[in-house]
Amino acid sequence: MSQTPDSAVRTYIAANRIDFLEDLQDWLRIPSVSAQPEHADDVRRSADWLAGKLKETGFPTTEVWETPGAPAVYAEWPSDNPAAPTVLVYGHHDVQPAALEDGWHTEPFEPVVRGNRLHARGAADDKGQVFFHTLGVRAHLAATGRTTPAVHLKLLIEGEEESGSPNFRALIEDRKDRLTADVVIVSDTGMWSETTPTVCTGMRGLVECQIDLSGPDQDIHSGSFGGAVPNPATAAARLVAALHDEHARVAVPGFYDGITELTARERELFAELPFDEAEWLRTAKSHGAYGETGYSTLERIWARPTAEVNGMGGGYQGAGGKTIVPSSAFLKLSFRIVAGQDPARVEQAVTDWVATRLPEGIGHTINWTGATRPCLTPLDHPALQSVVRAMGRAFEQPIRFTREGGSGPAADLQDVLEAPVLFLGISVPSDGWHAPNEKVELDLLMKGVETTAYLWGDLAESGPTAAP
Amino acid sequence: MSQTPDSAVRTYIAANRIDFLEDLQDWLRIPSVSAQPEHADDVRRSADWLAGKLKETGFPTTEVWETPGAPAVYAEWPSDNPAAPTVLVYGHHDVQPAALEDGWHTEPFEPVVRGNRLHARGAADDKGQVFFHTLGVRAHLAATGRTTPAVHLKLLIEGEEESGSPNFRALIEDRKDRLTADVVIVSDTGMWSETTPTVCTGMRGLVECQIDLSGPDQDIHSGSFGGAVPNPATAAARLVAALHDEHARVAVPGFYDGITELTARERELFAELPFDEAEWLRTAKSHGAYGETGYSTLERIWARPTAEVNGMGGGYQGAGGKTIVPSSAFLKLSFRIVAGQDPARVEQAVTDWVATRLPEGIGHTINWTGATRPCLTPLDHPALQSVVRAMGRAFEQPIRFTREGGSGPAADLQDVLEAPVLFLGISVPSDGWHAPNEKVELDLLMKGVETTAYLWGDLAESGPTAAP
Repeated sequence: MSQTPDSAVRTYIAANRIDFLEDLQDWLRIPSVSAQPEHADDVRRSADWLAGKLKETGFPTTEVWETPGAPAVYAEWPSDNPAAPTVLVYGHHDVQPAALEDGWHTEPFEPVVRGNRLHARGAADDKGQVFFHTLGVRAHLAATGRTTPAVHLKLLIEGEEESGSPNFRALIEDRKDRLTADVVIVSDTGMWSETTPTVCTGMRGLVECQIDLSGPDQDIHSGSFGGAVPNPATAAARLVAALHDEHARVAVPGFYDGITELTARERELFAELPFDEAEWLRTAKSHGAYGETGYSTLERIWARPTAEVNGMGGGYQGAGGKTIVPSSAFLKLSFRIVAGQDPARVEQAVTDWVATRLPEGIGHTINWTGATRPCLTPLDHPALQSVVRAMGRAFEQPIRFTREGGSGPAADLQDVLEAPVLFLGISVPSDGWHAPNEKVELDLLMKGVETTAYLWGDLAESGPTAAP
Repeated sequence: MSQTPDSAVRTYIAANRIDFLEDLQDWLRIPSVSAQPEHADDVRRSADWLAGKLKETGFPTTEVWETPGAPAVYAEWPSDNPAAPTVLVYGHHDVQPAALEDGWHTEPFEPVVRGNRLHARGAADDKGQVFFHTLGVRAHLAATGRTTPAVHLKLLIEGEEESGSPNFRALIEDRKDRLTADVVIVSDTGMWSETTPTVCTGMRGLVECQIDLSGPDQDIHSGSFGGAVPNPATAAARLVAALHDEHARVAVPGFYDGITELTARERELFAELPFDEAEWLRTAKSHGAYGETGYSTLERIWARPTAEVNGMGGGYQGAGGKTIVPSSAFLKLSFRIVAGQDPARVEQAVTDWVATRLPEGIGHTINWTGATRPCLTPLDHPALQSVVRAMGRAFEQPIRFTREGGSGPAADLQDVLEAPVLFLGISVPSDGWHAPNEKVELDLLMKGVETTAYLWGDLAESGPTAAP
């Protein structure tokens, strides 16, 4: 297989690194927080900024696509070879909320380079990982002498990923004719570590709900009534306690129906990763590991579904005590789901289960607030092999496999576009997604640039659906 | 047994009713909310007002007793018969917080008479029930022609009952020499109903705690880590769920140790009360009855200990969802306890139990924030029989027995003064203690006046410790 000259790619990247990082910092200064209505204008400004920058990069078509929520950015750069495969890159330009008082050492929307790290909200999730595609395609062209990419390149960068992508599915259904692709590359995930580059083969899905429980019509005196009426906080707690069995398996009947179990080979590859549980716990900031019996920590977070309490409350919240039977309680639950599980089936299973578990006198409502499907690419998929080769050239070491415990709209792309979804991300666990002091490792960011500089040629030559 | 002429008592009360009610309304205008620091001056004003009114009533000794918190009022009116028994009346002059926006139809500290009801915060709990002792002792003197009461009469009206009486035990220990009594009469409870007058024979005790649980050092991403680390909200919920067994009995080992079980006679008397569960549920504003298997609702609230969640929280509390494993969670628990249970033993049992029930990686602290002992007077106690007779004359019908599910400092009086504690209260469940639109029934209030007008003579004659 002929290859883009690696040295030409590296020379081009080195020459353009400073401008690239300055541009990225300009983008990071825009607080495109999709969850906070007061930042709606900033999210729009972020979309406009990106569209402009993609035009400047050379994409002949750049568009801002409106949705009922925040706008997405779409760009196209067709190959001069009509027979070339079409690749759609997915990322997002919105970010999680961030405020100095959450524990940031510097203003979250004032990017700061400290050593080899760039700190800012969105540095890794996901602006940095979207942005490496700009310099990547330029390096690809420069090193190959091409004027158009070796693949028909499309980018779709949404603006509501951090708000659960409420309009994404409708958007891609509406625009399906523009988005057709042979393969989807999602750049919104991470690698194992700085020293162990990996490619992700799948993401967990997610369904979320809020359960509101009602008891007495108002808070009532626990001396006068306590012990003889049902307490909605107790009922809420019992639901949570019953969510899992003694093996930490989810105890909701039907929850595991249809699940794609891990293969022996996948478990072997997971086990070969240099996993240090003590180090992982430090990253997790947890003081213990705990999960489903019979599975390793990596299997638990990557390949096993979960039921998690994200928030709960009920009764008196102030200082000291108040002797009441509370009137209401709530649970915010989320369920990570894996390949083979269907969001609608899981929602129904939980809904049915809750209905059978509450005592007389406790009312309830469940609101399902979002669903994301899981996705998974088989290890022997040819496009996955292209990604592995391109990364191998950039990192100059073997590429291993991971999965992602988090969730994203990747599966919607897979379903609507009927194309395989691959993951190309260079973030590492210490980057602090959704946390204070988010950062990206600059060396890895440039490896991301380099990987994409090789990837389009490899995909064009080997074909995304041919045998490797 | 010779008796105070009932007609003379009634004539005196009728002649003084209007002044009595005007005075009470003056007192109710003072917002003596002990839980709110901004009302500290009002609580003091309430104490001074009461001390002045007791002096005016004829008590030769009236004092305002300082505590590290709010002041109490003490008054003494010795009998001219040195051999007379000594009676200590207990009540409180502080009130629960109240604000129009909580659902009051009129300003809570602007008393309003509507029909036969006086509405104001404190009308029943407890200013009305303290105040009937003023006109009561005057009626006793007027009807008997005495110039001093038939008993050595002492009043101790504390100012921090609604804040858990934090300084009460120390106060009565310090002033034990002044407070010695043959019997204590607590006027801070209620009766069955307007048509079924009752005397209360005991109160549940109370221990309260806050349990704080810690998990990861900060909220962490539930996609990246969920399913493999322990969740403190889940741990909190499991504690709550494990508090009770399938019979709704408290499952903490040792919790029931030493408990005084209900006698067959007490259960019989409870069962004879005209209890309408549907009506009771309406009062409770609960949509179902639920409690310990094998006990009736009345037994559950009066004579059985409980474990109640008064408040709980953890993780994300805002609108929508947030996919985190929360860093912390808390529980505010209270345990009602009954005769035979000791607060310190219950606290130890719960503390020991919690320590065994948390997974590795979940830290915890327990803060015990208050303890009130239970108390119980045997049905055949002679002073209890005096109360029953005095009430019987006032109400002109048989007096039945109840208990009180709530808790108060009565047991401290019992312990420190080594005197039996009796309850004389005329409040009814619809009075709305701690709730908006608290009221007192004026007819019952005057029956309270009348009962005390008979009680001192009866106690002096029959003796608080003689056989009935």
